[in-house]
Amino acid sequence: MSETERGGVPELVSEAAESDAADALRGLRERFVLDEVVYLDGNSLGALPAEVPARVEDVVRRQWGELRIRSWEESGWWTAPERIGDRIAPLVGAARGQIVVGDSTSVNVFKALVAAVRMAGEGRDEILVDATTFPTDGYIAESAARMTGRALRPVAPADVPDAVGDRTAAVLLNHVDYRTGRLHDLPALTAAVHAAGAYAVWDLCHSAGALPVGLDEHGVDLAVGCTYKYLNGGPGAPAYLYVRAELQDRFDSPLPGWNSHAEPFGMRAGYEPVAGARRGRVGTPDILSMLALEAALEVWDGVSVEAVRAKSLAMTDFFLRCVGAYVPQGRVVSLTPAAHAERGSQVALRCDDAGDVMKRLIERGVVGDFRHPDVLRFGFTPLYVGFADVERAARVLGEVVR
Amino acid sequence: MSETERGGVPELVSEAAESDAADALRGLRERFVLDEVVYLDGNSLGALPAEVPARVEDVVRRQWGELRIRSWEESGWWTAPERIGDRIAPLVGAARGQIVVGDSTSVNVFKALVAAVRMAGEGRDEILVDATTFPTDGYIAESAARMTGRALRPVAPADVPDAVGDRTAAVLLNHVDYRTGRLHDLPALTAAVHAAGAYAVWDLCHSAGALPVGLDEHGVDLAVGCTYKYLNGGPGAPAYLYVRAELQDRFDSPLPGWNSHAEPFGMRAGYEPVAGARRGRVGTPDILSMLALEAALEVWDGVSVEAVRAKSLAMTDFFLRCVGAYVPQGRVVSLTPAAHAERGSQVALRCDDAGDVMKRLIERGVVGDFRHPDVLRFGFTPLYVGFADVERAARVLGEVVR
Repeated sequence: MSETERGGVPELVSEAAESDAADALRGLRERFVLDEVVYLDGNSLGALPAEVPARVEDVVRRQWGELRIRSWEESGWWTAPERIGDRIAPLVGAARGQIVVGDSTSVNVFKALVAAVRMAGEGRDEILVDATTFPTDGYIAESAARMTGRALRPVAPADVPDAVGDRTAAVLLNHVDYRTGRLHDLPALTAAVHAAGAYAVWDLCHSAGALPVGLDEHGVDLAVGCTYKYLNGGPGAPAYLYVRAELQDRFDSPLPGWNSHAEPFGMRAGYEPVAGARRGRVGTPDILSMLALEAALEVWDGVSVEAVRAKSLAMTDFFLRCVGAYVPQGRVVSLTPAAHAERGSQVALRCDDAGDVMKRLIERGVVGDFRHPDVLRFGFTPLYVGFADVERAARVLGEVVR
Repeated sequence: MSETERGGVPELVSEAAESDAADALRGLRERFVLDEVVYLDGNSLGALPAEVPARVEDVVRRQWGELRIRSWEESGWWTAPERIGDRIAPLVGAARGQIVVGDSTSVNVFKALVAAVRMAGEGRDEILVDATTFPTDGYIAESAARMTGRALRPVAPADVPDAVGDRTAAVLLNHVDYRTGRLHDLPALTAAVHAAGAYAVWDLCHSAGALPVGLDEHGVDLAVGCTYKYLNGGPGAPAYLYVRAELQDRFDSPLPGWNSHAEPFGMRAGYEPVAGARRGRVGTPDILSMLALEAALEVWDGVSVEAVRAKSLAMTDFFLRCVGAYVPQGRVVSLTPAAHAERGSQVALRCDDAGDVMKRLIERGVVGDFRHPDVLRFGFTPLYVGFADVERAARVLGEVVR
């Protein structure tokens, strides 16, 4: 049974085949463990990189099982947070020595935001937070505000340039909106925050690994992100914290655990922070999750983030066209901006019965996710999703909603 | 070559053999991956339980690799923090529903101490902290004090009953001292803290899995602990947080991440904390490390903590006697209390050239650790260390220091 016999529009089916044939990233799919499912949920949990199982087995059986405590030195466990941070750095446009891996995104938001407020000094008494943020950032920002005696003010990202002022200590923004897939203008918003003398903290969860971020280039102060979405680090893999090199000496952590001490094995009663990115560390790193992430990042060797971005945009464009062809008009409405400059690597479709539709899509082998109350989310991960997958996803969606 | 030919005191060698033969926990050694090394560093990193490698492989290859995002429900990922907490509960004398697993010990100390201060209310303006604490607890306590506007006062645990008063909000104590192995009197100190109307926060890193803790019985308010020492959860395995059931409604977390929301997938802008132990959760749990820990805990099924404690005391007694027999008098001095009621499951020996001595011990197949500047630490993990190991360790120590 050919694709068109199964109801495909011949022009779209052949366009998909041509795009796949011309795709320079096509070979990377082999580096992942995949099956016949169209997996469009890599913006929630990335697929398993083929390198990972053997690496994890080595970490468990040899490094832990045989070397045991010696692995803290001999297997490089102790230095893993900053070593893996340096591996993430080029993917987000950061020079070495500015990123440490560890803790969850929420915990890193707390570190970054409290540190930013402290950098801003006593005179600035409010924090601005993206009013459309993924909820945890807002909850943690509320706690950071409460614990530093600042007011918290939710502001739509587009309104930040007007809202930020000489009372503003820090602004916490999402690079890509988790719900709609909207990409915010990191360079312009960071510049506006700086023009007001405030500090810009960016959450990169939905952008890192999908598009260029340019942390150093755009002068971002602090940033956090997770590693289990487009970076494929595994379920709940540790998050990361970026602290711009020039600000590291002023990074005053609210979680000054012993791993961030200048001499952690000196066992001193007084806290003296280490220099550099390590200052963002807290407690003992979770080695199994962390070294799985390290193996997962090997897939990026030699991959250009610009090429990933180009393919991502081509896929989301193509998906929107296929949806237009396969889904009855008005049955779904795209929440994702049409302009490339405003689009991340996912497409969000509003659909009255989204929960039920997503269930049936998954039964038919097309995996996206449902966001309460009425959003279908489809994430396009250029490392392992192809154009034929995109056409099939839209076609099955059309069948399901009819 | 028999043991005595290699320089053993015949009486000690045969006593070791008899004690091993009579040891009801002897069979548990088979549940761990071990070799001919005498591993006395399980108080730093527990040995690999034999269950773990296959479980981790299943988590990686099937749960992540095949089920992917579906595993959050189908493989029980989402509920792992409280499910594994319930597995730890009987080991520390807690009823179900009071422990969640996640984050590092340092992060949990921050949650527990800030929450305790908030429970105590505005009128109480100081926090007491164990003056001999493992450093990270002190650093984090300093931050908790700073961020809640309280003073921090270091106090020797024995002086807590005199020091605690109506100004005291919370007291942070270690159940067993990481350096000397001294066991503090948790029931009496908790009662003294309560008599002053303050909250008791205990760090169980060096006691859980080695001796009975009795959290519920003794009315402890909050507690934290790591899982990579006597619980054998693996390098950097997630820590846990205990919040006494009656206090859970008043647990006001400084890290209110989305995992602790009453309706985490409601994606609401306003934070509303869930009831119960889950309120201690923060961000997405690190599943690989967490499920390795879950497998590691299976070794405890049917094991009595009281039996573990009895063997631990027998081993540390025997070790001290063997050291007396094999090590020239005055060459090392025990820092570990002689009284059982004051002893944890490790022996600390002060030794001028401890760093060098430990290096040579490790070369000879006896692994303990060195704590700056002059302490040899030997941890006795009753699940997999036997009396012949104890005799051999002391004998090799005698040879090394001569």
